[in-house]
Amino acid sequence: MTETLVVVGGDAAGMSAASKAKRDDPDLEVVVFEKGEWVSYGACGLPYYVKGEIQSLESLVSVTPEEFREQRDIDLRTGHEVISVDPDERTVTAKSESETVVQSYDHLLLATGAEPVMPDIEGTEREGVYTLGSMSDGKELREYVARARDGETFSQPDRGPACQYLEDCTGPIGIVGGGYIGLEMAEALAEHEFEVHLFQRGERVLTQFSEQTSETVATHLREQDVVVHLESDVRELAGGNGGGGGDGNGGGDGEDGTGEVDSVVTDDESVSVDMVLVGTGVTPRTALAEAAGIECGETGAIATDAYCETNVGDVYAAGDCAEATHTVTGEPAYVPLALTANRHGRAVGQTVTGTPTEGGSIAGTAAVKTFDIEAARTGILDHDDARAAGFDPVTETVDAKSRAGYYPEGGTVTVTLCADRDSGRVLGASLVSEYGEGAVHRSHAIVGALEEGATVFDLENYDLAYAPPFNTTWDPVLVAAKVLSGTIRDA
Amino acid sequence: MTETLVVVGGDAAGMSAASKAKRDDPDLEVVVFEKGEWVSYGACGLPYYVKGEIQSLESLVSVTPEEFREQRDIDLRTGHEVISVDPDERTVTAKSESETVVQSYDHLLLATGAEPVMPDIEGTEREGVYTLGSMSDGKELREYVARARDGETFSQPDRGPACQYLEDCTGPIGIVGGGYIGLEMAEALAEHEFEVHLFQRGERVLTQFSEQTSETVATHLREQDVVVHLESDVRELAGGNGGGGGDGNGGGDGEDGTGEVDSVVTDDESVSVDMVLVGTGVTPRTALAEAAGIECGETGAIATDAYCETNVGDVYAAGDCAEATHTVTGEPAYVPLALTANRHGRAVGQTVTGTPTEGGSIAGTAAVKTFDIEAARTGILDHDDARAAGFDPVTETVDAKSRAGYYPEGGTVTVTLCADRDSGRVLGASLVSEYGEGAVHRSHAIVGALEEGATVFDLENYDLAYAPPFNTTWDPVLVAAKVLSGTIRDA
Repeated sequence: MTETLVVVGGDAAGMSAASKAKRDDPDLEVVVFEKGEWVSYGACGLPYYVKGEIQSLESLVSVTPEEFREQRDIDLRTGHEVISVDPDERTVTAKSESETVVQSYDHLLLATGAEPVMPDIEGTEREGVYTLGSMSDGKELREYVARARDGETFSQPDRGPACQYLEDCTGPIGIVGGGYIGLEMAEALAEHEFEVHLFQRGERVLTQFSEQTSETVATHLREQDVVVHLESDVRELAGGNGGGGGDGNGGGDGEDGTGEVDSVVTDDESVSVDMVLVGTGVTPRTALAEAAGIECGETGAIATDAYCETNVGDVYAAGDCAEATHTVTGEPAYVPLALTANRHGRAVGQTVTGTPTEGGSIAGTAAVKTFDIEAARTGILDHDDARAAGFDPVTETVDAKSRAGYYPEGGTVTVTLCADRDSGRVLGASLVSEYGEGAVHRSHAIVGALEEGATVFDLENYDLAYAPPFNTTWDPVLVAAKVLSGTIRDA
Repeated sequence: MTETLVVVGGDAAGMSAASKAKRDDPDLEVVVFEKGEWVSYGACGLPYYVKGEIQSLESLVSVTPEEFREQRDIDLRTGHEVISVDPDERTVTAKSESETVVQSYDHLLLATGAEPVMPDIEGTEREGVYTLGSMSDGKELREYVARARDGETFSQPDRGPACQYLEDCTGPIGIVGGGYIGLEMAEALAEHEFEVHLFQRGERVLTQFSEQTSETVATHLREQDVVVHLESDVRELAGGNGGGGGDGNGGGDGEDGTGEVDSVVTDDESVSVDMVLVGTGVTPRTALAEAAGIECGETGAIATDAYCETNVGDVYAAGDCAEATHTVTGEPAYVPLALTANRHGRAVGQTVTGTPTEGGSIAGTAAVKTFDIEAARTGILDHDDARAAGFDPVTETVDAKSRAGYYPEGGTVTVTLCADRDSGRVLGASLVSEYGEGAVHRSHAIVGALEEGATVFDLENYDLAYAPPFNTTWDPVLVAAKVLSGTIRDA
């Protein structure tokens, strides 16, 4: 009898699983339910769409629904929201505009993803407050930019400090959150000559990176005329009908606090804005799983074993809704990123077709570009986190030349490297450089060391490629390893 | 009693050892004999000096003789050639223009380097035949370029095919050898609008890289109007006073075959040239060691143990004159490159001051840029070499996008990956991309895998950094690992 794989969610994890399963077992019936109209899209590309470097949302789609249906023979049902899972009956119930279907499964993959989390402050429901999680979010933001730049609905900006240096800047725009989305969107919006205010609750942006990386990035943002507000606890997104501060230039407000946003109010100040983008992280979509008795872990995401299977047999979870095992700590972690979604989805596709495949651990590696700077991080950098995992962390940071000193181009790569004092084991790293000077790709060496449980003494001896246009004889990664090795040896 | 470290040779290995030893034990007396006047210079930068991107030879020097003497308290004696070593008496004898000194040692480091090897053909002694191994070679080549471009001694070029496309090209110049020096100098000379003919004996350039890398590079060279002569066995560098072919426009020739070169003669053709650069590899300088009874290995370089010690106690060898252990095969290998020289010199400096330190193995990693292309290689790629080391090699090559498909910039990274069929162990890799698209830095991930003896299944699961400006969700390295894993699994 033909078996059926049912997938809930048609993005990276879901479509990777569906494609791989169908390829490995063409007899398998594969049904994918996707709530929206878009599948298999690169949400990571949305900032570049808003920036205008990408001209259509379609170009973010790697495989179209038609291709999945016609070329890959996958029963893809867009516009179908799965509203319940019955593990005892092995069925899911999905609803579309026109029908409710009950679909039985032999294997079920929950790939429901994550959604932007809204901070617990007043005014997040106002008009003019955006997030960037979905294709439609991207579309709305781009439309906002188009409107603002054409002046159709755009009020005269209340010019702030950055505008003193910008000829034609408009806005201002408030970005709440100094993570990936916040930094990428700062670049995208500045490209359109908006004055950008970035509000970050803590004392540094990119909190998952090293302090040195955060500082380098914040300095760069300021050089690009982004107004960076650190230690700035946003209390309210205020609008014309009340709230603290604001110049009252917003229009169309009602009396229920949902009128147009016109200012970002922090403990210290009120900054007039024309629009607010909230980028304060994401939260896994787990309601469907929880209602079906599927367990979530301490991180709040769906708990899985090494094969991405949940506590309920034949029910898998992968991608932004699920936990994964951390490479360094060996503990469950929630780091919702694209590569993990692809990899774990693919592994599930192999497992359900008879080749049990582990999803693989995650090192928490991430990269970001903003303006003319690039940064990467991997592993464990925070000393409290390292100690909680049983390590005695030691960290060193070096500024190293990105190319031979005599080579005409080049800049600085700042490498922060963390290792365990007793064993020397590499725990984590953060790198930052001018864009094009290789902080991100150089991090590959450290990921290799992390994945293999190598020590900093091992890493110091890696025979990395060298030529004058690419590094000094000792690559910046080796310089950092050499310095940290010395610190640990001398301790 | 104060001990003495004597170092023979004042470049990377020698000065790294001297500096590290003196730093770790300021009481140690450190004497360095250097035959020439230059120390601690970046020979890797010479092509960029000839190209004109670097304006002075001095800028290739990382630490000056004065700094070594005054700031590092090293007894550096330039212009002193060591003519013999007496291991029984523990002395070396050195000669300068004005004196002969006998210096006793407690520890001796031979860091005599390597020199360009001349192919066994007629005419290599002619005027106008250059190599590029030393600072004075670099000076002579730059002077040649200056003369030729000013037209002072430069005869009207015999225009060949490439000149059909170049407005002002001069030359032609023949480069014998398609390795690092040949390719870097092709770029440097083409920058000055010389017509460049590159002669390569075998069927591809960069023989230590994969065939795909070689092809990509050769195609690129041709696009840059370099005339690439493959399978072109150079028989003679002919001159005006005889030899095959040539238009006899060379001047100043005698009757002894040492007159000015005017053509490169191969089995198939004779190509008129104004100058020839020979870049056919290097050979270790071992005469001093051999005369003292110090053993060389099968590679012809000085044999050493893990601590860079030779068969004679307290006599070390490091850098371009010495063998090292190959990471993959575990056998002695001769890969004379800058990082190894620095690292092994430094290790010797630590060892002789009481901290026994292994030099570390070498993976044969190398990088090269030529024109607008970059390439890296590491480990074992040649199947015969792999089989000789007891492996059953399997190789796959993939063309992958260097950045997200929708990202506005980007190109192709071609990754060739080789692994052992039985164990899956990664054996080697070769990567090539447009310059700036990261072939070289991406190779760091594979070096990490090689160093740790990881399998391609491990590598496939490396959690490498991803963001749209830097790669596709699966970095090209992961794409290659995925494909090769599949091939091995399905076999």
